[in-house]
Amino acid sequence: MKKYFAELFGTFWLVFGGCGSAIFAAGFPELGIGFVGVSLAFGFTVLTMAYAVGHISGGHFNPAVSFGLWAGGKFSTKELIPYIIFQLIGAILAAAVLFLIVSGKSGFESVGGFAANGYGALSPDKYSMQSAFIAEFILTLFFLLIILGSTNERAPKGFAPIAIGLGLTLIHLISIPITNTSVNPARSMSQALFAGGEYLTQSWLFWVAPIAGALVAGCIHRVLFENE
Amino acid sequence: MKKYFAELFGTFWLVFGGCGSAIFAAGFPELGIGFVGVSLAFGFTVLTMAYAVGHISGGHFNPAVSFGLWAGGKFSTKELIPYIIFQLIGAILAAAVLFLIVSGKSGFESVGGFAANGYGALSPDKYSMQSAFIAEFILTLFFLLIILGSTNERAPKGFAPIAIGLGLTLIHLISIPITNTSVNPARSMSQALFAGGEYLTQSWLFWVAPIAGALVAGCIHRVLFENE
Amino acid sequence: MKKYFAELFGTFWLVFGGCGSAIFAAGFPELGIGFVGVSLAFGFTVLTMAYAVGHISGGHFNPAVSFGLWAGGKFSTKELIPYIIFQLIGAILAAAVLFLIVSGKSGFESVGGFAANGYGALSPDKYSMQSAFIAEFILTLFFLLIILGSTNERAPKGFAPIAIGLGLTLIHLISIPITNTSVNPARSMSQALFAGGEYLTQSWLFWVAPIAGALVAGCIHRVLFENE
Amino acid sequence: MKKYFAELFGTFWLVFGGCGSAIFAAGFPELGIGFVGVSLAFGFTVLTMAYAVGHISGGHFNPAVSFGLWAGGKFSTKELIPYIIFQLIGAILAAAVLFLIVSGKSGFESVGGFAANGYGALSPDKYSMQSAFIAEFILTLFFLLIILGSTNERAPKGFAPIAIGLGLTLIHLISIPITNTSVNPARSMSQALFAGGEYLTQSWLFWVAPIAGALVAGCIHRVLFENE
Repeated sequence: MKKYFAELFGTFWLVFGGCGSAIFAAGFPELGIGFVGVSLAFGFTVLTMAYAVGHISGGHFNPAVSFGLWAGGKFSTKELIPYIIFQLIGAILAAAVLFLIVSGKSGFESVGGFAANGYGALSPDKYSMQSAFIAEFILTLFFLLIILGSTNERAPKGFAPIAIGLGLTLIHLISIPITNTSVNPARSMSQALFAGGEYLTQSWLFWVAPIAGALVAGCIHRVLFENE
Repeated sequence: MKKYFAELFGTFWLVFGGCGSAIFAAGFPELGIGFVGVSLAFGFTVLTMAYAVGHISGGHFNPAVSFGLWAGGKFSTKELIPYIIFQLIGAILAAAVLFLIVSGKSGFESVGGFAANGYGALSPDKYSMQSAFIAEFILTLFFLLIILGSTNERAPKGFAPIAIGLGLTLIHLISIPITNTSVNPARSMSQALFAGGEYLTQSWLFWVAPIAGALVAGCIHRVLFENE
Repeated sequence: MKKYFAELFGTFWLVFGGCGSAIFAAGFPELGIGFVGVSLAFGFTVLTMAYAVGHISGGHFNPAVSFGLWAGGKFSTKELIPYIIFQLIGAILAAAVLFLIVSGKSGFESVGGFAANGYGALSPDKYSMQSAFIAEFILTLFFLLIILGSTNERAPKGFAPIAIGLGLTLIHLISIPITNTSVNPARSMSQALFAGGEYLTQSWLFWVAPIAGALVAGCIHRVLFENE
Repeated sequence: MKKYFAELFGTFWLVFGGCGSAIFAAGFPELGIGFVGVSLAFGFTVLTMAYAVGHISGGHFNPAVSFGLWAGGKFSTKELIPYIIFQLIGAILAAAVLFLIVSGKSGFESVGGFAANGYGALSPDKYSMQSAFIAEFILTLFFLLIILGSTNERAPKGFAPIAIGLGLTLIHLISIPITNTSVNPARSMSQALFAGGEYLTQSWLFWVAPIAGALVAGCIHRVLFENE
């Protein structure tokens, strides 16, 4: 059970810290953290919890990562479903606590889009569904190449959480304007549930594109980069 | 005594660097560092002093951290009070030096709120007392999970100051708009003493919520994540 | 072949992440990542892929780096051409995918200058050809000194990707206003092909200056800093 | 001689990168890097060259650091003068190249204050001489505590350049508005020579305060934190 709780707490932190920084701090007048701050926040959630509980659960905190590691031969089939369930529980709990906090803000009326992901009319900079799909696919693919490569036994020991965390920061630096950046179906789901409406309708893309990218990365890693 | 001085200097640096960056540099016209810069500053105070004197005192620099490590079984009861006293001395000395410097600014009249923490009318973005309490509780809880996890013997050696420092940066990226971010009673106290008035009246929350979060984290770590 | 694919993927990521962050996110109203975000993005592309595939190919992702390591006696003559070819393929593929995504943005008309490099009228802040040449020469020279020094056997083990990645971030923090920062002919070429016109005419400088700087660095390292 | 060239190149890079980022990129309209970017740049110059040539010269790049390490018993008296001479040469050469580049900017008329340090009327935010002295003294004192502590044999191996580099970033995040941040007489001298006039007259403070802080830190480290 220890590893399931590690995934629950890790994914809670990813959503609470990443989405929370976006909701509370991105647009604060003059001093707000903007997309740079949100990007750092997402990356640091993974960096910190990967050092804290990575030795317990592997530190996935993301269903696409679990799928990608499985495709890369680093994760057992029978763990896939329980991992994803605990990731979803952690993500949704975090969204609930974020809702609780933000609803205590003076003048609060509604969460609006929360920190939900979207394409087309719901894309922050109005990118099409095709653009959104390509971006999420490519970014998750490289996220998994970074994870599989930096945790490889031939890579320097102990540095993987830095590479992975800053990799997630980088992914956000690139793509917040396109889809608000998912690469993580649990993160997307947790926000869509509170944002509702069209955000929920569009949430399929943030399952399909990241997981597809992760599966392809697992195969690429095995075929091109694995030791013999 | 070496370890008490390490805590004094470390907590001085945390307040001088973190609160100082907020007071001097956050709102500079056009070029100011904003909340992103302040968040980095707080995190880097801990990262730097944890590498510098962490091997002497453990690098707490924060009464809530001392309580959390104690609850997690990593810190002795008899050290708790002396550590907190030296942390408070360091924090208050730093606030005094900040006051000295800022009072030499052309046109200086008063410190206003200094870098004090607050809720309700004193929250930067007007969050209620309940929201402030939940945020401080959750953030300190995870801060301690990161500390306890990354210093665990099964975690990669030597990286804990990076995880802990960037964890504190992350915590600030999330919550400066809510409470101006405490998670550290010594930091809060040092500023409230100079800001005075309502800031001082509200300072109870920045003792109770962080320490409560830290104690819960210590228990969670022992029950869920510790090696038997 | 493994190492050629590592260079292809690494250079793809450098262009996709670095140039992509500039194209998609730098100028977003209010919340955009600006030059700081783009600088972090370029650095993190190299940091992440150096940890992921550095143990396979050495992690050059840049023809100037390959030339510099060759001049420093760390890279074989016969690998030079294949490395550069695969770097160019990766860079141009990335530019094509960036084009695909950006063309799906509502109201898209043309890529304009894409994230191409330039001097004189094409310099972001209108620096002369001479200034541009000096800047690219000096910056690539130091980039190679950092690479050759931090991968030296007497340097701490495993940290080189951090030094090199943050070195590239630093280079961008300095010089985006001068040339939009190249120090990498493959990155420059990939953008000039899509930006066309004068950008293509100026692209010679972003081959000559970086490679000249890299060659000089290789010699400096051998003469001044190498262990006998 | 190898170590003297290492100091020359390292200090060149510190001034070229740190001051260069301020001169070229800080105030660029809309997208400029501001004080956060300049702070990162200064820190990354030291982080990168400490990994690159720290194993050759110890990576001081700063007369105050040489004095502080000497006071702390880590650096020999007879090396002090040659180190400082080569640091000054590197710093001044870098300022000359910065001048060369910036003078090639369209519409260039004069360097103005370059990236020089100052107090009173020359302080970016008009802090008094006393405030400037206290800030430079305290900041250099802690810079040396970080250096002496993180390079101590009981500190984790290999991480010192990260602690020291991010420590310098932190110092800039705090104090650019006060003095434009020196903590380094070679950096100050190199800019004052080109800015001239009152900047040159004030340059005494940026020798005296940093070196005094460094000497006190050396003594504190020996008395309070050293292993017997």
